Amino acid sequence: MKQAITAKDVAKLAGVSQSSVSRVFFDGAKVSEKTRAKIMAAAEQLGYRPNEFARSLITNRTRIIGMVMKGVQNPFYPQVLKQFATAFKEEGYSILYVHTNNDEIEAEDVETLLNYNVAGVIITDAAMASTVEKQFEVNKIPVVFFNRKLNTDEFYSVCCNNVDAGRKIAEFLINKGATDMAYITGDEKTSTSRERQRGFQEILDQRKIAYRQFASDYTYNGGYQTAMQIIGKESLPAAFFVANDIMALGVLDALKNSGIKIPEDTKVIGFDNIDMASWPAYQLTTWEQPIEKMVETTVAYLLNEIAEYTGLAEVVEVDGSLIERFTT
Amino acid sequence: MKQAITAKDVAKLAGVSQSSVSRVFFDGAKVSEKTRAKIMAAAEQLGYRPNEFARSLITNRTRIIGMVMKGVQNPFYPQVLKQFATAFKEEGYSILYVHTNNDEIEAEDVETLLNYNVAGVIITDAAMASTVEKQFEVNKIPVVFFNRKLNTDEFYSVCCNNVDAGRKIAEFLINKGATDMAYITGDEKTSTSRERQRGFQEILDQRKIAYRQFASDYTYNGGYQTAMQIIGKESLPAAFFVANDIMALGVLDALKNSGIKIPEDTKVIGFDNIDMASWPAYQLTTWEQPIEKMVETTVAYLLNEIAEYTGLAEVVEVDGSLIERFTT
Repeated sequence: MKQAITAKDVAKLAGVSQSSVSRVFFDGAKVSEKTRAKIMAAAEQLGYRPNEFARSLITNRTRIIGMVMKGVQNPFYPQVLKQFATAFKEEGYSILYVHTNNDEIEAEDVETLLNYNVAGVIITDAAMASTVEKQFEVNKIPVVFFNRKLNTDEFYSVCCNNVDAGRKIAEFLINKGATDMAYITGDEKTSTSRERQRGFQEILDQRKIAYRQFASDYTYNGGYQTAMQIIGKESLPAAFFVANDIMALGVLDALKNSGIKIPEDTKVIGFDNIDMASWPAYQLTTWEQPIEKMVETTVAYLLNEIAEYTGLAEVVEVDGSLIERFTT
Repeated sequence: MKQAITAKDVAKLAGVSQSSVSRVFFDGAKVSEKTRAKIMAAAEQLGYRPNEFARSLITNRTRIIGMVMKGVQNPFYPQVLKQFATAFKEEGYSILYVHTNNDEIEAEDVETLLNYNVAGVIITDAAMASTVEKQFEVNKIPVVFFNRKLNTDEFYSVCCNNVDAGRKIAEFLINKGATDMAYITGDEKTSTSRERQRGFQEILDQRKIAYRQFASDYTYNGGYQTAMQIIGKESLPAAFFVANDIMALGVLDALKNSGIKIPEDTKVIGFDNIDMASWPAYQLTTWEQPIEKMVETTVAYLLNEIAEYTGLAEVVEVDGSLIERFTT
């Protein structure tokens, strides 16, 4: 076990009180020049490094943002992680990365976040029980749901305007001449999948265009398998709206493997605009999520709440945009 | 700013010394039953939660592992991050995720790791100056280079046996009848790219088989551009060994886009066995990195060094294996 140098050691060598050492390193409160000089000399001699933990005990806050994530297999999330890490680094904050294996945040993950007294929490692709939310609220720790919208007004969440995107995608495919359409869902427990579907179906219903829906799971393999089942059993729809890109790539591969030509025989549109969507093998038409704007909004909210906690709950929806490539 | 409840508050309410509170919550050292009861009642009443920071000041250690990463665009690394987060969670450790934008760890990243008094550090795709290494050594913080081997014996590093893999890949392609071959490098500053090349070239030299080398950068776009340049200017080699999978997918797409048939006109083999390598659009033959074994080795080393610091420096190479698919 390490024997780290503490403020106590510095105080002893300098012949001053421990609170004087604290004042010099953490508070910025006044100490006499003579005391300060003695403390700095002792700190120098001992190699004393005041750490964040010590700082947090005195200031009662940390510079750690907890980031809860599940699906790193979907390239959208590593991209999000990178952008948050970069943005928070500029503000002097670090990321505590919490990988959760379940749809819902596990009790031990919450324990970890509370134990480290994080300054804020970002939850991407996981759900959280209301009782859990209370624990953060009591501790005045702001929480943001990123790319998720919950069925309650208790949370602050930042996402793309998914209903509107679904509508625009329907209109786009109608303009391309598609006469019957299929929606391949993501995980149906998620707001993203449900809202994209809602906007999409709303327009098709208005325009009396045939609509089918197939359940899938937001993964490449899920998209591939779902498309293979449709090809085997159903008539081919004129166009597919697939709830995210990684799944749309699976759908494309299944269609191509079955000798179906895109965009001649059917059309495919995804959601996210991950890097791979632009690869020559795919050239997927998709809906771009405005990640930068979404990250910016989240960071601004958390920094405000850290400065002065208000517990503000709100849903912020940011507009994305259609990226047309060769699958439509 | 939050007013968290501290051990001092508990001590005051319970009418005992602060060190008694510390003993109850952190040390496990003896206090009388009567004192313990008073402290627990006060803690309960105040909602006191002893946090990791307080714990760390008393035990002089934390349960945070710093993880330094650059290339999250390469799906190999999110996979590695997930496995480390899962393995360390089981041991009660959390991951501080540090995204670095440079090839070399930046001074502020090192500051962060030292400020949080991390228990250990894992560095994946970044380099570190010797002077920086000293800072960790002085603080008895064990460091592991994961998937990197440095030109010094000062570090502990865990990687795949890259030289041997390069040799086996050469033999495999020779057995497939390839008579002249090209190696597309990753970032040439990395040991992984250089060692894969060394083993590969060694066998080709022995067997007097023509060898060419093209510099690239471990990214999809790099692989795509490098292949396009070769197609435009050079005769097509009988086989490509591409230093990682994500770049090999770029090479495959460039070849296919140019009407070149795989594996008839030329063959391609990658390295890593990322999920995408098995997708029907690619079906890439590759060398599987034994991630699980590599993660296990790294975790075991760090836990040992955390329990008792020895500063052991060693290179651990784990054997991978060839995964044959349809590009060879």
